[in-house]
Amino acid sequence: MAIGEELRSGCFWRGVLAEASATFIFVGVVLGASAAPGPVAPALAGGLVAGALACTLGAPQANPALTLALLCTRKLGALHGAAGLLAQCAGAVLASTAARLALPDDASLVTRVSAAGTAGQALAWETFATFQLALAAFAAADRATPQGGLALGSAVAAGALAAGPFSGGSMNPARSMGPAIVTGIWDDHWVYWLGPVLGAVLAGLSYEFVFAPGASREKLGA
Amino acid sequence: MAIGEELRSGCFWRGVLAEASATFIFVGVVLGASAAPGPVAPALAGGLVAGALACTLGAPQANPALTLALLCTRKLGALHGAAGLLAQCAGAVLASTAARLALPDDASLVTRVSAAGTAGQALAWETFATFQLALAAFAAADRATPQGGLALGSAVAAGALAAGPFSGGSMNPARSMGPAIVTGIWDDHWVYWLGPVLGAVLAGLSYEFVFAPGASREKLGA
Amino acid sequence: MAIGEELRSGCFWRGVLAEASATFIFVGVVLGASAAPGPVAPALAGGLVAGALACTLGAPQANPALTLALLCTRKLGALHGAAGLLAQCAGAVLASTAARLALPDDASLVTRVSAAGTAGQALAWETFATFQLALAAFAAADRATPQGGLALGSAVAAGALAAGPFSGGSMNPARSMGPAIVTGIWDDHWVYWLGPVLGAVLAGLSYEFVFAPGASREKLGA
Amino acid sequence: MAIGEELRSGCFWRGVLAEASATFIFVGVVLGASAAPGPVAPALAGGLVAGALACTLGAPQANPALTLALLCTRKLGALHGAAGLLAQCAGAVLASTAARLALPDDASLVTRVSAAGTAGQALAWETFATFQLALAAFAAADRATPQGGLALGSAVAAGALAAGPFSGGSMNPARSMGPAIVTGIWDDHWVYWLGPVLGAVLAGLSYEFVFAPGASREKLGA
Repeated sequence: MAIGEELRSGCFWRGVLAEASATFIFVGVVLGASAAPGPVAPALAGGLVAGALACTLGAPQANPALTLALLCTRKLGALHGAAGLLAQCAGAVLASTAARLALPDDASLVTRVSAAGTAGQALAWETFATFQLALAAFAAADRATPQGGLALGSAVAAGALAAGPFSGGSMNPARSMGPAIVTGIWDDHWVYWLGPVLGAVLAGLSYEFVFAPGASREKLGA
Repeated sequence: MAIGEELRSGCFWRGVLAEASATFIFVGVVLGASAAPGPVAPALAGGLVAGALACTLGAPQANPALTLALLCTRKLGALHGAAGLLAQCAGAVLASTAARLALPDDASLVTRVSAAGTAGQALAWETFATFQLALAAFAAADRATPQGGLALGSAVAAGALAAGPFSGGSMNPARSMGPAIVTGIWDDHWVYWLGPVLGAVLAGLSYEFVFAPGASREKLGA
Repeated sequence: MAIGEELRSGCFWRGVLAEASATFIFVGVVLGASAAPGPVAPALAGGLVAGALACTLGAPQANPALTLALLCTRKLGALHGAAGLLAQCAGAVLASTAARLALPDDASLVTRVSAAGTAGQALAWETFATFQLALAAFAAADRATPQGGLALGSAVAAGALAAGPFSGGSMNPARSMGPAIVTGIWDDHWVYWLGPVLGAVLAGLSYEFVFAPGASREKLGA
Repeated sequence: MAIGEELRSGCFWRGVLAEASATFIFVGVVLGASAAPGPVAPALAGGLVAGALACTLGAPQANPALTLALLCTRKLGALHGAAGLLAQCAGAVLASTAARLALPDDASLVTRVSAAGTAGQALAWETFATFQLALAAFAAADRATPQGGLALGSAVAAGALAAGPFSGGSMNPARSMGPAIVTGIWDDHWVYWLGPVLGAVLAGLSYEFVFAPGASREKLGA
């Protein structure tokens, strides 16, 4: 389909709106739950809302790292991918602005590198947590079982619990960028783009060339 | 079917009784779990019981905000909607009365605006949390997958975790009205009607006109 | 089938063994998790293991209250019911003995009425929590969807979170009797038989005569 | 198929790589979440990631105890079993090395016998917790319902919550061996091999000869 036709189709814009809404909801829920003490509440909230969204809005990615991994594995066209990325960032900024207005203080909004660790350690945890999340996302998209959404939500919560003490467990560049724009705190922000994108792209390539039911070495040269 | 016929049918009264029982169970479980310290126990209890009820009693709404949103989108007739609303309020008042008798003190029953925030902030969180919950409810009703109940329960728990620190995470006017009647504490009570109803109606309209598989602009004029 | 034939069939004894094993596993997991501080760990452990068992051992009841409710609604024969009850009590006593040997101290084993409340309040919470659990169990047995096990587990966890602060959230006479026999602490023990049995029988009758898809007034006279 | 042919097939090596990756992910997530205070975060993280992996990588065991139980019940050939065990140990050592580098301190990595209890008590809890986990794993493999992964994840989390206060709730020799190699702390290490293997083999035999839908006494002599 030509780009012009795409841009005139309702289906295209509905997908873009679903990405923006899903990222808005995901980031809003995670930011709200982050105000509670302890690491369990935000991790569970993120996993639960991701599971619910996967069953609701036609399985949006709501995560720039996943969208970039889908672009790399040629599962998503350039136009859809770019529009999705913009929509995700817009949704995250909107949610962060709203959260800042609706929150008594904004100290809990930003994902930070743990004071006891280094940025390199946070990067490793973000990469690892997003790797396992993206594996679950690729498998869920591939098999299209109704179970997929709950498996995806489980992976989001598990990754947030694992990486939480070291990097805040973002696994989502949009979730980290929104609060950074709103509060102006950009410390170690590169960690939250490099880690998730690296993890998701690695997971996408691993899934496509190794773990997918129809994976084969021929695909590598395709 | 004429109203007289409806009122004589067993199916109608069974639905009304299911709404009353489901709201009684939901409010009772949430009020009991609210006696525990921390925000995680009541949020999880609410989500778990909502998921179980969705698989049990023929998917009742158990929430006036959802019922009003179904009325607005013409998915529920006026008679069914009005009877459901009355049944939900009766169930919630009954559960709150029982909980007050069975609780050593009634300080934890009422949903309150956080002391660190304003009523407007609580309103924003209630609206947002109910918006994402109602989106999940509309999608679950539409697709009728067995997954739906668990997605709905996930959304209830996620919303309660997100809005909990600011407004108590009610998302359900009946859950807030029951304890208000029983304890006589009506501070900021309007927040718990306006927020959830606004969020649910917005979600219902968004789902019907944008996100539903068969949504189209023609529906807007229908 | 005659009683003699039943007693010689492998299927009958396999069912009895499944009841004993499931109650052993359920009580063991709940007693172990009760050693952790706070009400969330034992409630989640009980719900998770109940959900897993429902998918594993051919959906055993593992709960005398549920078995008695099935007997009352004529869904289980007298012989199966009596054998199941004995098996459940044996499994619970075995698990409690093992837990006492494997636990540094036995203070956390017994379900107790909260010091801030009365036995009557604990009775009300046990009845209510078991009522909603048994409703989920009857619906799961009736519809036989693969979802049923997870809905049942959700109801167990939700009930334990709700009743936990007041009565320990037992909802299962075998879970309370085992530790009472082993430790000799029988304070308010009647609460943990009367409450769950009352709740489960009420739920069984409500489901059969009101909420079941094919329920009708004729059944009442059958 | 001859061993030579097996070793040349892509399917064989894909399975081995899936075992290594799944154990790497499982151990990494559990070690990360163990840095948080309290027993709930690591137990939930383990259960959630096990549930997600079961839906993702073609249901790997990711656990030497389960692999040995499958070998004992002749559900897995010797070559597949041996390769799986090696892959699991390699994955766990890799994850532990990475976790040690990415963790500010390594005190929380190792599973230890509770100071208030004895090694024998820890052994009993590991055996019991792995018994119920392996029962769920055998049932999930047998019925192949999409529900299986979530039931397995529930059993992992329930077992970790139950055994956590006494032995750390490992239920997986690879998860305990990795950190022991990396930190050099081998206190009571035999508990974490004997307990899980005993529990899993007992569960495998019980399931095959008693609880499986087609189980019969004839199988015992086969």
